[in-house]
Amino acid sequence: MAALTLASKSFLPTDLSFFHSSSSSSGLHRLSSPTIQISHCRISPRKLEVKAGGSTFGNYFRVTTYGESYGGGVGCVIDGCPPRIPLSEADMQADLDRRRPGQSRVAIPRAETDTCRIYSGVVDGLTTGAPIHVNVPNTDQRNEDYNEMALAYRPSHADATYDFKYGVRTVQGGGRSSGRETIGRVAAGAVAKNILRAYSGTEVLAYVSQVHNVILPGGVVDHETLTLAQIESNTVRCPVPEYVEKMIDAIDAILVKDDSVGGVVTCIARNVPRGLGSPVFDKLETELSRAIMSLPATKGFEIGSGFAGTLLTGSEHNDEFYTDEQGKIRTRTNRSGGIQGGISNGEIINMRVAFKPTATIGKKQFTVTRDRKEIELTTHGRHDPCIVPRAVPTVEAMVALVLVDQLIAHHGQCELFPINPYLQDPIRLPDQLMPANLSN
Amino acid sequence: MAALTLASKSFLPTDLSFFHSSSSSSGLHRLSSPTIQISHCRISPRKLEVKAGGSTFGNYFRVTTYGESYGGGVGCVIDGCPPRIPLSEADMQADLDRRRPGQSRVAIPRAETDTCRIYSGVVDGLTTGAPIHVNVPNTDQRNEDYNEMALAYRPSHADATYDFKYGVRTVQGGGRSSGRETIGRVAAGAVAKNILRAYSGTEVLAYVSQVHNVILPGGVVDHETLTLAQIESNTVRCPVPEYVEKMIDAIDAILVKDDSVGGVVTCIARNVPRGLGSPVFDKLETELSRAIMSLPATKGFEIGSGFAGTLLTGSEHNDEFYTDEQGKIRTRTNRSGGIQGGISNGEIINMRVAFKPTATIGKKQFTVTRDRKEIELTTHGRHDPCIVPRAVPTVEAMVALVLVDQLIAHHGQCELFPINPYLQDPIRLPDQLMPANLSN
Amino acid sequence: MAALTLASKSFLPTDLSFFHSSSSSSGLHRLSSPTIQISHCRISPRKLEVKAGGSTFGNYFRVTTYGESYGGGVGCVIDGCPPRIPLSEADMQADLDRRRPGQSRVAIPRAETDTCRIYSGVVDGLTTGAPIHVNVPNTDQRNEDYNEMALAYRPSHADATYDFKYGVRTVQGGGRSSGRETIGRVAAGAVAKNILRAYSGTEVLAYVSQVHNVILPGGVVDHETLTLAQIESNTVRCPVPEYVEKMIDAIDAILVKDDSVGGVVTCIARNVPRGLGSPVFDKLETELSRAIMSLPATKGFEIGSGFAGTLLTGSEHNDEFYTDEQGKIRTRTNRSGGIQGGISNGEIINMRVAFKPTATIGKKQFTVTRDRKEIELTTHGRHDPCIVPRAVPTVEAMVALVLVDQLIAHHGQCELFPINPYLQDPIRLPDQLMPANLSN
Amino acid sequence: MAALTLASKSFLPTDLSFFHSSSSSSGLHRLSSPTIQISHCRISPRKLEVKAGGSTFGNYFRVTTYGESYGGGVGCVIDGCPPRIPLSEADMQADLDRRRPGQSRVAIPRAETDTCRIYSGVVDGLTTGAPIHVNVPNTDQRNEDYNEMALAYRPSHADATYDFKYGVRTVQGGGRSSGRETIGRVAAGAVAKNILRAYSGTEVLAYVSQVHNVILPGGVVDHETLTLAQIESNTVRCPVPEYVEKMIDAIDAILVKDDSVGGVVTCIARNVPRGLGSPVFDKLETELSRAIMSLPATKGFEIGSGFAGTLLTGSEHNDEFYTDEQGKIRTRTNRSGGIQGGISNGEIINMRVAFKPTATIGKKQFTVTRDRKEIELTTHGRHDPCIVPRAVPTVEAMVALVLVDQLIAHHGQCELFPINPYLQDPIRLPDQLMPANLSN
Repeated sequence: MAALTLASKSFLPTDLSFFHSSSSSSGLHRLSSPTIQISHCRISPRKLEVKAGGSTFGNYFRVTTYGESYGGGVGCVIDGCPPRIPLSEADMQADLDRRRPGQSRVAIPRAETDTCRIYSGVVDGLTTGAPIHVNVPNTDQRNEDYNEMALAYRPSHADATYDFKYGVRTVQGGGRSSGRETIGRVAAGAVAKNILRAYSGTEVLAYVSQVHNVILPGGVVDHETLTLAQIESNTVRCPVPEYVEKMIDAIDAILVKDDSVGGVVTCIARNVPRGLGSPVFDKLETELSRAIMSLPATKGFEIGSGFAGTLLTGSEHNDEFYTDEQGKIRTRTNRSGGIQGGISNGEIINMRVAFKPTATIGKKQFTVTRDRKEIELTTHGRHDPCIVPRAVPTVEAMVALVLVDQLIAHHGQCELFPINPYLQDPIRLPDQLMPANLSN
Repeated sequence: MAALTLASKSFLPTDLSFFHSSSSSSGLHRLSSPTIQISHCRISPRKLEVKAGGSTFGNYFRVTTYGESYGGGVGCVIDGCPPRIPLSEADMQADLDRRRPGQSRVAIPRAETDTCRIYSGVVDGLTTGAPIHVNVPNTDQRNEDYNEMALAYRPSHADATYDFKYGVRTVQGGGRSSGRETIGRVAAGAVAKNILRAYSGTEVLAYVSQVHNVILPGGVVDHETLTLAQIESNTVRCPVPEYVEKMIDAIDAILVKDDSVGGVVTCIARNVPRGLGSPVFDKLETELSRAIMSLPATKGFEIGSGFAGTLLTGSEHNDEFYTDEQGKIRTRTNRSGGIQGGISNGEIINMRVAFKPTATIGKKQFTVTRDRKEIELTTHGRHDPCIVPRAVPTVEAMVALVLVDQLIAHHGQCELFPINPYLQDPIRLPDQLMPANLSN
Repeated sequence: MAALTLASKSFLPTDLSFFHSSSSSSGLHRLSSPTIQISHCRISPRKLEVKAGGSTFGNYFRVTTYGESYGGGVGCVIDGCPPRIPLSEADMQADLDRRRPGQSRVAIPRAETDTCRIYSGVVDGLTTGAPIHVNVPNTDQRNEDYNEMALAYRPSHADATYDFKYGVRTVQGGGRSSGRETIGRVAAGAVAKNILRAYSGTEVLAYVSQVHNVILPGGVVDHETLTLAQIESNTVRCPVPEYVEKMIDAIDAILVKDDSVGGVVTCIARNVPRGLGSPVFDKLETELSRAIMSLPATKGFEIGSGFAGTLLTGSEHNDEFYTDEQGKIRTRTNRSGGIQGGISNGEIINMRVAFKPTATIGKKQFTVTRDRKEIELTTHGRHDPCIVPRAVPTVEAMVALVLVDQLIAHHGQCELFPINPYLQDPIRLPDQLMPANLSN
Repeated sequence: MAALTLASKSFLPTDLSFFHSSSSSSGLHRLSSPTIQISHCRISPRKLEVKAGGSTFGNYFRVTTYGESYGGGVGCVIDGCPPRIPLSEADMQADLDRRRPGQSRVAIPRAETDTCRIYSGVVDGLTTGAPIHVNVPNTDQRNEDYNEMALAYRPSHADATYDFKYGVRTVQGGGRSSGRETIGRVAAGAVAKNILRAYSGTEVLAYVSQVHNVILPGGVVDHETLTLAQIESNTVRCPVPEYVEKMIDAIDAILVKDDSVGGVVTCIARNVPRGLGSPVFDKLETELSRAIMSLPATKGFEIGSGFAGTLLTGSEHNDEFYTDEQGKIRTRTNRSGGIQGGISNGEIINMRVAFKPTATIGKKQFTVTRDRKEIELTTHGRHDPCIVPRAVPTVEAMVALVLVDQLIAHHGQCELFPINPYLQDPIRLPDQLMPANLSN
């Protein structure tokens, strides 16, 4: 996520023939590689605003994010938003503050404030139905010497594959892989959360359930009663106090080694209306998986019982139905994770997401330059030792975006006419529970 | 997957008030529930052809599947296929035979032959560029007494959620959740495999790496040399001979208990052109995850290091670059799973997919009727004790569809003009390696 | 539209060198061209079913048509249809009968009955929310000697451009340009009309306003009171009795000359809910234009004042607002055609569509073969002297499809929460005016 | 297009009961209506940047425009652009200057310079394949007193329908109907023109063929030889010198009457590759119609023979094929307008577009307020007497966007493998005719 700069150019020969001769001694690459050391330094912001498209998520509630770690800021445009939803910058800022760097000792110590501003689509505190544009300026610009940077492909970053795809020698093209891109997702997710809360009292909550080899045991978190306050009570966003210190220790231990660790985020959605999702290719878990796996650094996704479910038999795994005291059809267990046949069944949706350790580390690594010469690369400066706590609001945002998109799809198709009370439950909150602007 | 019929109607009271009184005794549901027994019987095929749309996958190479387990058959329409690709029904049949029921002792003993026929889009053995329609008739029709079936929501099936969504008392609407829907995917996947093979020698291979608690150890399969023959050498599609019998035993053991088990499919793609996938929301792993998680019974997806990668540090996880003997930039390890920054890097793509145990089992289960009354349900007849070996070709198909879709996207955008040989490699096979029809 | 067959093969040399030598005498093509005569003969239907995709219209209410003039029939799959809409085959048949050949003296005398059958998505007379599949068999198969046909590019048909695009020598690929493809559109349009009528009492009516040089004067049709009965009172579908005979005479006159004529269809939509359409690229007139101009043989589209509006000044063209007796905001004139700023304003939407004369004629024409040799082509047999009366239901269908698509889009976005009664009118009919199935 | 301000508030009663009593005298509206006078005044630019989404055109080469007449400017994001295309701001500025106000006596005398800046996607004069962001600041801000403006629905503007749709009392939401939105289209069109020129020497040229009742006779412009210089030789963009003064006189005459006029733009595309467009719903003329009819103020569209073609017989209308001296299959006439069966045939594509007279006029008009009261409205200040000359580059831009989108679609599907030289022509220019960056 952090962009890199050459600290000392004297280490880098201007005569590229040096690399040529070096790499010709194949078989001895690791010994003979030249060494590049890279570190960060601050510069005054250049006025280079960078937007990006093709970066659109959703079919009905469509979010386009833009921006990179350098330039005029990042943000999103939200299209298809219902009109007259109460919305303020404060709604978004709360989640952006959970995502921003420098928020705690376990996050990268970068001085971004990540203050958002709504530029269109909201008037007098209400959405207008027109596109909503939200921008967050980049306040902590750093100099990035691209001519030199362009020489080295950072291991497990996007540098090399962007070159393979586009055939253009530029790192600006690669800037969209910056973690700052997720700011636009989090801002849009806040709008989605507002809609879900107003419509059906739906809540989306995520927390850290694993940091490196510190793993929360199954069942230790009660998803019926989990609160945001529990999650936000500590810097690693783990709602189980006994594990918080262990996780922080794991992060501290890796930080001093100039290395990084990954982990797992668990996410739930509560009070999800029944009926969201569509058979075959637009199943609800399909859309959730797609949403989650578009986040940077994700390597795995599970819904309900996940990979552990493969160890159960069918009779152990099936969720039996019963009728509850209100006469509502429920399941006694929830190995399905709140989704059956691709459609939400009203139970709590739960997911787990694997995040790999951050690719940017301080330790020395071997790599090649764009000229295909092998070198040693050392990056000095700040990086996130563990991105997982900061990833929590990004996971919530993507889940909320899917749910609103599917809610609008369902409302458009299946509630154009009155529902069938014999088989269906009304899914909108009674007017007296809605914000005043929506119920008059 | 199997549709159900009431074997003996005497068990089912025609007077529904019986159910009403039963369910009123809440708190004692499990003791007092009435019992339904359901079994299968064959009938002559009714001429009820059922098609379905909204069932489209892909943006450039678009596949629409249709059909259900009853009615006039299943299949697909493939749109956007390049013209002049050699294609025959035999190409599709090979994969369909790997998917069909009754192929072995570990699969459901159903007598479908699943013989496909191409109805359009192919002339004289070559695709025309027009849509390709492939149909597979349903030859093993069974009587499904929907009036009675409609009473019981089968646990962990789509019956209940379809009712919640659409508000219509019909099981026909739910028929699209049938496993037979995947026939259309497999047929389309065969076309995609032909294109990949002809264009770049790309191969997609999947195999069973876990059945219930029989788990292949990591690294035991060599992905560089894995062959289709190894996979197809046994009925469970496990390429490691020592584990084959253990897996078969696990399935046999569960079958006699009228129960089912799940497992894991591992899938690789070899010789994938570099540059497939797009930044942000259309990353290659995003598309693969979406494709895989649209398959019935999937509960989890991993790319590269997956959940296990969360236990590594950054320096352990990063894939260092080097230049190989042909001067090509490669990675020494492949924890990224062949994809970096959302774009393929030319290394082997590898994924793991979790399949839950089949929901249809013979054991007695508790559930509710559509009238919200609690009952006992017993299903007699055939079911798949373990769907995982038959899921192997469906996973391959979805992966092949994603790769072709992204290949066409990449070719349209990034190879409209000549490539930049300094940073890019040509990704099309030399003409002499192509089928004659494509190279003249 | 009619496919062609060689009547007498003796006119066609089997030795193609004949063509070569002929065409070598360039400069004298029109004199020396060989002559091909083509006519129709019936054969028993071959069992070649041909489906097609990529043939999808709409974003929310999506219609995919398939089929060609030969093979197993034509039809459509409708996806995203609201559940519990009353629907029967009779609803569709009424419009299909208006489209079918052989319905009158002015239409092609072909014996198709065009009887439709619903295969899925409708149970007990109600839509289920699942995809609706409608099929119409091809009953009037004719032998089409493609090997010979393939030689000649018929003027102003799709033969040549299909070859240019796909590079495959096959006329089957070109079959989707058949006028029979519009059968699927008309069937889907009937579903759309049912939804519009039930939801808001919206009616879509089209009629013939010009045949060749017989032109209805402006204003002679009262769009407030126009009825389907007036349109259907005669074979040319002109609601003004004085012009009916003139139009029929014009068609009769051209028929005896083995030639064809075109004309204009006018279409209105009455009681259209306000608020349909979206700013910028998804304006309502944009979607209508796209829908109409996808019909075969269309060459022009006008909304409201159209090309004639260019002769007015702004003060003559602007539609002034007033408040009517019910307190509703209306316009005194309607040069806007019921749409302002891309959004419906509640006034009557009106459009005009230009249809060129049918390309298939009996007269001798010059053309070239696929081998680029110039020849004379004479086609014997049946053709439509004027397609315009039969195009009327296809225009209505496309307009109804756009309106339902936009209605669902609007309902999903703008009526997810209660409307603002101060600025908005409720657009759904009161329950007592709805069909019983939709209002309980 | 111009936003309005109340010049003198003394005309507007603050007590709205005045309007109530006035409107209660129904039947006498036109006599008793209160009077509002509106005029323009300049203010210093407010820093209100307004972006908009849902404003995306194209499937492969996707353009999203944003912005309004107030706020931080307008522009576009272009996604899916091929990499390594030479591109500079000067390329865009040339067309933007043709669109900007104040360019001549016949255009609105507004002082916008419309200077564009590329913010991303272009490095060292070449596209990178990443999204291209182009912005044009709003330099000529005017104060718009929305509280007062909000009272009056301007006739034939979007004010009323935006209120009907969204139910929110705000004019900002309506800002996207501003003519300045088309700036983003023109900038994107310049990129498309660069691609077309480099790939196949394709040119897109539009000109004014009618202003009010001054109409160019058919055939007076030679589309084979028409040049941009001919079009740009005068302020009305009419390439026929004899008609230029007549058109200017017509505009001058209407300007002194505080009124406006419309007209017709003709557009051609020359050297269009054969094979662009797809059968059924994605025909090339369908996409062109949709593109054109999304431009503000358009009321009609014609391709090839258009409405006039309805007066011809089939034998008069059909375009006979012949083989030219290079052995290429051509048509002797071009009533098809360069498209047959929905696919380009290599002949010149030609279209005509009707633009209504500008809705903003100085003359007094009757209308209603948002409170549904009838009033008189007088707008002082600048407006375009005839938008048609300035619409010329917007038409060209939309046509170029469609052609590039279809080119990429065709290349991705039909040129993934080598073409069939027997039926197809290569459509890319030989390397020696390409810009150097594209052919190495």
